[in-house]
Amino acid sequence: MSFTYEFERPSLTVDCVVFGVDESTLKILLIERGIEPFAGQWALPGGFVRMHEDLESAALRELSEETGVTKLYLEQLYTFGAAERDPRGRVVTIAYYALVRLADHRVRAATDARDAAWYAIDDLPPLAFDHRKIVDVARERLRGKVRYKPIGFELLPHKFTLTELQKLYEIVLERALDKRNFRKKILGMELLVALDEVEAGVSHRAARLYKFDTRRYKRLVRQGFNFEI
Amino acid sequence: MSFTYEFERPSLTVDCVVFGVDESTLKILLIERGIEPFAGQWALPGGFVRMHEDLESAALRELSEETGVTKLYLEQLYTFGAAERDPRGRVVTIAYYALVRLADHRVRAATDARDAAWYAIDDLPPLAFDHRKIVDVARERLRGKVRYKPIGFELLPHKFTLTELQKLYEIVLERALDKRNFRKKILGMELLVALDEVEAGVSHRAARLYKFDTRRYKRLVRQGFNFEI
Repeated sequence: MSFTYEFERPSLTVDCVVFGVDESTLKILLIERGIEPFAGQWALPGGFVRMHEDLESAALRELSEETGVTKLYLEQLYTFGAAERDPRGRVVTIAYYALVRLADHRVRAATDARDAAWYAIDDLPPLAFDHRKIVDVARERLRGKVRYKPIGFELLPHKFTLTELQKLYEIVLERALDKRNFRKKILGMELLVALDEVEAGVSHRAARLYKFDTRRYKRLVRQGFNFEI
Repeated sequence: MSFTYEFERPSLTVDCVVFGVDESTLKILLIERGIEPFAGQWALPGGFVRMHEDLESAALRELSEETGVTKLYLEQLYTFGAAERDPRGRVVTIAYYALVRLADHRVRAATDARDAAWYAIDDLPPLAFDHRKIVDVARERLRGKVRYKPIGFELLPHKFTLTELQKLYEIVLERALDKRNFRKKILGMELLVALDEVEAGVSHRAARLYKFDTRRYKRLVRQGFNFEI
């Protein structure tokens, strides 16, 4: 079947907002652009979609090429296509986002990226294009997502203390939580299994370890349970 | 600034899933394609994004051209870009969705559409491309949206009975709701103002009329209140 397209067509890119958590901070993976436009400025990792490549594959490829980061679960965020968003001409970008443990990913810049680094979300440099706006939308989505899915299932070690889980929630939600309320709510979901073990390396008042009840976790997510804290 | 693009680039379209409610049914606005591929088959209204046109403008333009439907609030749904989704070659589509009152919109086919019509969601004809999948994603999103935003604010007349509101919820959620539970929950949100009026044209046991408390509605939506029923 032949296909004629009468119009000049927009270019298509993908961009990735990768959130990383360490012990205390929410960070974002940025690259320093090695090419024009905005050479020398920081931006989200991303690039042009190839002709025979699925969108998510393009996002994973660009992320891997520019930052060395691989093996993560990307979700589509939003497509940004304002007519004037790119000085090169019409470029529509499909943004993806992910939340990972910083410790699990080694960063190494290459191809179009002169450098790659994690930046604390509250201390971002000026970003190229409309990438600041994309970051803000991703941040909002990340916060909203806790309603559908408890945080931590993919991010915490297999066994963890309630303090570790609360800390993770506080980092991702970017606000302090009341300890008693948090414990009441999270235990009320019956999502956690209390283990007959306490944290290692603490001799006095070591905290109990918990793990996620995988089956119940999956069932609740399927049911659209509201996990709000 | 000059811009060289080394690759052949995908084409970009927009598609619209417009849900319409009447007194009893959830429907979707479809067009019968007048051109190849899939000429004579039903599909979502949509088409190619022009070079200097924002994405939402493109969606509104295509909708208006193909179906005559205008003045509605579209939200971006998802971008579908599987490499093999279109027999014409690589076409990435940005899908939008909306929920309207059927009675507010007159449908009239034109341009690439040979016909345009509302189809009950449970009685859709086979659809062109991957449009059935797009409809399913939109349906899921519509159901999920009730968490963020009560249904009806834009869809009901200014004054309505609780029975009318419940009916609207049942149509959109596609399930029956228990009358007592529904009333308890919806009144518990303190979203509605009871008026000193009853429905017209009913002499015996006429039901009380309500309206939305606009200010409280907006505040709760801003706060991310959970409106689940």
